[in-house]
Amino acid sequence: MEQHYANRMSNVKASEIRELLKLTEQPEIISFAGGLPAPELFPTDKLEKVMVEVLREQGQAALQYSSTEGYLPLREIIAKQIMKSCGVECEPNNIMITSGSQQGLAFSGAIFINEGDVIACESPSYLGAINAFKLFSPKFIEIPTDKDGMIVEELEKALKNQKIKMIYTIPDFQNPSGITMNLERRKRIAELAEEYKIPVIEDSPYGQLRFEGESLPPIKSFDKSGYVINLGTFSKTFCPGLRIGWVCADTDVLQRYIQLKQGQDLQCGSINQIATARFLAEYSLDEHVNKIIDIYRNRRDIMLEEMKKHFPEEVTYTYPEGGLFTWVELKEGLNAVEIGMEALKENVAFVPGNSFYPNGNDTRHFRLNYSNMSEEKIREGIKRLGKVLKKYY
Amino acid sequence: MEQHYANRMSNVKASEIRELLKLTEQPEIISFAGGLPAPELFPTDKLEKVMVEVLREQGQAALQYSSTEGYLPLREIIAKQIMKSCGVECEPNNIMITSGSQQGLAFSGAIFINEGDVIACESPSYLGAINAFKLFSPKFIEIPTDKDGMIVEELEKALKNQKIKMIYTIPDFQNPSGITMNLERRKRIAELAEEYKIPVIEDSPYGQLRFEGESLPPIKSFDKSGYVINLGTFSKTFCPGLRIGWVCADTDVLQRYIQLKQGQDLQCGSINQIATARFLAEYSLDEHVNKIIDIYRNRRDIMLEEMKKHFPEEVTYTYPEGGLFTWVELKEGLNAVEIGMEALKENVAFVPGNSFYPNGNDTRHFRLNYSNMSEEKIREGIKRLGKVLKKYY
Repeated sequence: MEQHYANRMSNVKASEIRELLKLTEQPEIISFAGGLPAPELFPTDKLEKVMVEVLREQGQAALQYSSTEGYLPLREIIAKQIMKSCGVECEPNNIMITSGSQQGLAFSGAIFINEGDVIACESPSYLGAINAFKLFSPKFIEIPTDKDGMIVEELEKALKNQKIKMIYTIPDFQNPSGITMNLERRKRIAELAEEYKIPVIEDSPYGQLRFEGESLPPIKSFDKSGYVINLGTFSKTFCPGLRIGWVCADTDVLQRYIQLKQGQDLQCGSINQIATARFLAEYSLDEHVNKIIDIYRNRRDIMLEEMKKHFPEEVTYTYPEGGLFTWVELKEGLNAVEIGMEALKENVAFVPGNSFYPNGNDTRHFRLNYSNMSEEKIREGIKRLGKVLKKYY
Repeated sequence: MEQHYANRMSNVKASEIRELLKLTEQPEIISFAGGLPAPELFPTDKLEKVMVEVLREQGQAALQYSSTEGYLPLREIIAKQIMKSCGVECEPNNIMITSGSQQGLAFSGAIFINEGDVIACESPSYLGAINAFKLFSPKFIEIPTDKDGMIVEELEKALKNQKIKMIYTIPDFQNPSGITMNLERRKRIAELAEEYKIPVIEDSPYGQLRFEGESLPPIKSFDKSGYVINLGTFSKTFCPGLRIGWVCADTDVLQRYIQLKQGQDLQCGSINQIATARFLAEYSLDEHVNKIIDIYRNRRDIMLEEMKKHFPEEVTYTYPEGGLFTWVELKEGLNAVEIGMEALKENVAFVPGNSFYPNGNDTRHFRLNYSNMSEEKIREGIKRLGKVLKKYY
């Protein structure tokens, strides 16, 4: 069939992470490769109670078709509680429910990107977004980052030098780097979007998972012109298995997302949306998130502590104030893919960094996830990894 | 933002049906417009039992990320029971779970269609498919149909005359016409696909809902070359609110669907898939489908009986042996959109046929749905509609 596929399919490949994750499913492997939340924290009991209520009281609606934009009470909670609490003033009419924020990313590509259009993103950036955008055959310009996120002066330089069609950013505890963008840069990106009239896709899956320090408002909260589109999700704060995320955008822009979704999959699961809304109405999401934060903070602390103990001194890594990941830098000349293969032999796994660079020019980084492993396994895994790394230093 | 949208978005509009459905939500309107299953038949009690079991016994897996291709036990049931029972020999590796068959349609467009490629489809055809394909800027050639479905001689003529990239067909109780393709034509389309090396997207949402006569095997069952891709769904036989459909294709082709889905939304809901698999293992889908068939057959009978009584004699319509719809033809010169507006004034609604013609050259048909209304409302609604129609005859 090869010759029958549309041209765009030549850009679509299996995600290296998803393929790697299959390899790391064997129980003897300690995997820091995925980006999975800790399943032992999922509120299964509460959700059972909620599901029973939903099926008894709203069963027919929960199993029937429903609107493309999503279940109104859920969109109300997202607009009036979740978005509001992080400083974004919006209405339910600004919210469309998506199948995780991944669908929001894919739709953003479909809505804004023609073949050859340039997307500006952080270097490195989330590989799931890069892969989703690639379906539409864009070019990428990677904007350098430092400890405060995307360097806006570099972004502005790029905006002056060439036509950029869309800016993509993950301001909080970025995937893969764990870095958080500072307040000034957030404000400046909102200004640049207005000045250069360029849509900004702000991907916010981790914002609520802050372990310490002060929460920063999303770029969307500084948006006066409607150029900023914020993507949210319950995958990290509640559970990913229900596939409930959202797009927050001005109503005109949101209409295009809704029209696109009609053709793509009609709607998200009715029962998933009703159950999520009910869970949020009956229980405190903040309380649940605080539990997650306590556990993840502890896991981060242990991971960093063990890295300090077992990694060669020259190896550097980021200090994430929240989220799921730290990002490791190897010395010049080393290859994280090669080291990853060696690590697998020692039954420990991570994701080599190259896939996180859309233009693929980096081999000396890798990503470590700390949310999905027990304290004990983190200690053992980092010890093993240290042993492997020491061979190269 | 208008100037920022990608070119493809000029082809994406709100589905007229979804918009019309909003109008028809007022309780005083008797709506034959939607394509909704009867919610009173949803097995809410059984699903409650299943959901409780899933959350107690597999709660963490049900709420966690899972594989893009879908939950293996569900893919096994689909391959070994559902596809097998209709004559398609396949393995779980030939099945990917989709968010309803709508996602299978949208993905088929993404995988096969370049701008300007020609899609051959029945005239009329399912507007949700037409809209999904339009994102990829194709041309459509409408193949004439008769009481036995797509006229294959006309299809062959078209194949000889021009390069066709993809064939799209709904062989069973077609949406919107209610017509079923006969056996010879099914075999012939599988042959033509192989001969002309053209993928066939076979959309099979209604096949199991046969009220009478003999079930016909899908085109996929005659496929020797891997050119036929069959799309299935539980939306009409179980419930649409869980959003569980599937693609059945040769493994090579299926890989492309899986790679695409990774970027689009990662996966379908884990809990939705596990609950569906468990429902299918614990209860008889056939038994449930038989209940649906009994009710829908009765509703079809009543609708056709009332149409005979109240419609002008010159108005013709199809006799569906299954599925959800009948298709009404008005005399030359009449306009179904205009009559639809008149009908709304009498508080009865249908979908005018023009949206079902991708090239939009027909105004004298409309679609009636009988699955979603009580006997009493069908009688009253058709009476009202008859009154409206008589003004034009």
